[in-house]
Order: sequence, then structure tokens, then C-alpha cells
Amino acid sequence: MPKKKPLILVTNDDGITAPGIRTLIDVMLTIGEVVVVAPDSPQSGMGHAITVNDTIYCDPVKLPEDKKHEEYSCSGTPADCVKIATQEIMKRKPDICVSGINHGSNSSINVIYSGTMSAAVEAGVEGIPAIGFSLLDYSLEANFEHCREYVENITRSVLKYGLPSGVVLNVNLPKLTKSQIKGIKICRQAKAQWKEDFDKRTNPMGRDYYWLAGEFVNEDKGEDTDEWALNNGYVSVVPVQFDLTAHHYIKELNGWDF
Amino acid sequence: MPKKKPLILVTNDDGITAPGIRTLIDVMLTIGEVVVVAPDSPQSGMGHAITVNDTIYCDPVKLPEDKKHEEYSCSGTPADCVKIATQEIMKRKPDICVSGINHGSNSSINVIYSGTMSAAVEAGVEGIPAIGFSLLDYSLEANFEHCREYVENITRSVLKYGLPSGVVLNVNLPKLTKSQIKGIKICRQAKAQWKEDFDKRTNPMGRDYYWLAGEFVNEDKGEDTDEWALNNGYVSVVPVQFDLTAHHYIKELNGWDF
Repeated sequence: MPKKKPLILVTNDDGITAPGIRTLIDVMLTIGEVVVVAPDSPQSGMGHAITVNDTIYCDPVKLPEDKKHEEYSCSGTPADCVKIATQEIMKRKPDICVSGINHGSNSSINVIYSGTMSAAVEAGVEGIPAIGFSLLDYSLEANFEHCREYVENITRSVLKYGLPSGVVLNVNLPKLTKSQIKGIKICRQAKAQWKEDFDKRTNPMGRDYYWLAGEFVNEDKGEDTDEWALNNGYVSVVPVQFDLTAHHYIKELNGWDF
Repeated sequence: MPKKKPLILVTNDDGITAPGIRTLIDVMLTIGEVVVVAPDSPQSGMGHAITVNDTIYCDPVKLPEDKKHEEYSCSGTPADCVKIATQEIMKRKPDICVSGINHGSNSSINVIYSGTMSAAVEAGVEGIPAIGFSLLDYSLEANFEHCREYVENITRSVLKYGLPSGVVLNVNLPKLTKSQIKGIKICRQAKAQWKEDFDKRTNPMGRDYYWLAGEFVNEDKGEDTDEWALNNGYVSVVPVQFDLTAHHYIKELNGWDF
């Protein structure tokens, strides 16, 4: 770790007032200098959305006088928050970006729908070591106390070891008590998916509409996956890359006769 | 190719009335049976967003009597369109899903912000062979004529050869005339990024706001990248995966002392 306090960018996708980000800010204040730039409203399921055809507001939040860090409430998506933080708000490039703690899982295929992870990936694209944290509890009243120790350890480890270019971490924490958690497992993303089952209704004007509903189905029985780790009492850590090239398939494609 | 006409799902992120999707539909009607489920308004930059806390409308579009295919206009994101098409609209699983033709590039890092590609990825997650097509011309008046031959060939090739589980194709077409295009190149995603330069303004009420602006910077000089191919007159085809695990970094992470 640098002798100077590390500069930490904190963001999320549940919005700046969510209990998850409040816990994350608390933990980060024990580690370094903190700047928060987070959405002014919940952005769950936003994937890696950015605001291309609309204005973005980003206003400082007035904090109690004993607070020494800065917070900004942003009308944009989580990826927007990271872009605007690094380009407009922060005086220098942050040493790390942490996103979350998300209210709900971002394990397995959820990573591609996740605003929490999109913020971490956006930071990674900009060359900033980054971690997304999620707790397997969708409730607004979720208890994040048992997350503190793991969030702190993993953040300090990334500051100590660094991350290679093109890699960020996706950390998920099981909904367990501190004594029930067995430790940290490094994992791969399980091959699982959502089986949708839309809830079709008719509005008072007679027009049909849908609610997205569904069931998470994991047919990947590997014991090296994030799903296995979480189901067996571990905190899962998946290294995530944003070079999406399926390198293993390039040779095969070159054999196609278009 | 199956003897029965293939069933083709067509979608995009520029909206159902965009010229790009009209060209794509035209080409697909020469190949198979077509069902269109596309956003009712432009969704550029939506990444892999899904609608989790709002209703989704999906209404049939009345077509001229000589048209034998079906079209649906959907209030959701591109990923929503694929989910609702496969679960609610189509009578059987489509043989292929094509998305686009996007007005603007989805090469390199743009793939992570791309609604066009999120639709293709969503189809891939559901086990449907899928292709995203994009033309390097943001104009609403873009000329898609030279795309037809390549769109048809690549689609027929995917129907013929299939794609392995977990892989979809990201196809970008240069803004050139038919005779200027040198052919198809299989590529990897170039390591490039956007350097943001927000345009900060003040609204009539005195509150600051931003427009996202920036410049695309490619420092990846590899001649096997999509950027190289497009800059040298080729149609780029990148196989894209949605297992985001950085498998090469798992061993290293296991050596960390958390």
C-alpha cells in the first residue's frame, strides 16, 4: 500500500441512500480518502448503460460537519457515475474503485445485467483497479454487518497486490452470519441463466402489459463456480474481464467458407 | 440449413422504425420466416439493461396485407425484447437471432455499451445462435445497401455451421461502397477506450449539468483486431463470449493472502 492514504472512488447501482453503499463508505473511510459519486435513484438491471442522448446532473451532497469525505448524487447510470467522477469530480485518478454493496446477487450470469459490476468494469476500462461487492439479500433492510471484514480484506488485498490490466473483481457474499462463513473462494462464473416467466396483465384501458419474472436455473455442477461457493458458505471472488473475444473460437471461424 | 425455412428473430436498439432494422428485415425475409420484436424508441447505450421495476408493453404492429411476417413494438430494452420474444411471442425457439443493423460502430470496447450486442448476447444465453450487425455510420440517413450481401452471407453461414454454446458474433461493417470492401476478417476485440470530455453547461435555473462527449482512442496496434480490419476496408467478425471469467488470473488470485 502507498504510504499516502489511497484515494477511493465509491459508487453503486441501488442509489446513494441505499444501506449497502453506506456500509461500503464506512469501511472505505477506515482505509483511505473517499469520494462517493453514486446514482440519485436505483439503477438495478441497468447493465452497462450510459447516458448518450440526455443531460446528466451531478450535485454535491451536503454532509454533517464531522464528515471529511465528499459525496455527489448523479442522475446518470453507474457507468456514467464512474466516467463523471474520474473526468470531472476527482482531482487525480483514484487508486481503487469499489461498487456496491449491492442488495442482491451478481453471481453467475447476473454479472452481465449488473449495474454494480458495470461501474467496476468502467473503472477497469479506465485502468483503475476495481471491485464490485454484492450481498445475496435483495431486502432494503439487509444486514451488511458480516460483510465489513471481507470487504475490507479484499479491498486492502487489491491495493497491496494490484490487478492486471483488463481484470476487475466480482465479489459476492452469502446471506449468513459471520461465524457461518467459511472464508473466501476464487471462482469462475457458473454457467447458469434465468428462465423467464413473464407475468402478463391487462391495464384498466384494456391494453396488455408484462412484468419480468423468472427463476434462476443453474445446471453447472462444477465445484469451482461462484454458485457452488455461495451455496457452500463461502464468499465468492471471480476475476472478470472485458475483452469479450472468444479467443478459442477464432481458429474455427477462420475455417468457415462465407 | 434445415429444409424447413429457418425461424428468425430480428431486433435492434435504434428502434423498430430505424432504417438499419428495415434493411435487416428485408434481407432476413429472403432467408426464412421472420418475427420482429424491437424497441418502440431508440435505446442506444443501454448496454445489457433489463426492465426489472417497470411494466413492459409489447404490441403487434399492423403491416401492409402483402407482408407475411410479424412485427411487435416493445417498450423495453433490446435484452427485454429478446426475452419477451422467446417466452411470450414466438411459437417455437428461433433458429437464429439477428440484431441491428446498428447506426454506428460496436467494435472494440463499444461492445460493452451496445444495446445491439446485448440483444445478441441475451439470445446466446438462451442457447440461440446470434449475430449483432453494425454499420460505421451514425447517421439516420446511413446507406445500408452495401451491407446486404455480407449480412446475408454471415447469417447463412451461422445457420449452416452453427455456433458453439456461449459464443455469439459481433459484426461491424465499414462505411464504404460495395466495391471498396475487401472482404471479411475474423478478429479479436481491440484494446481501446473512450477518453471522456464532458461538456459542462448551466441550465436556465442556474444548475450545472453535463453532456457525455469524448474521443475514441485506440492504442492497440495489432493487425488481428476489429479496429485494424475496419480501418483497412474489411468487415470485422469478432466471436464474443459471455463467460466473463478471466480464467488466466484465477491461479494468481489463489496465491493472494487475504
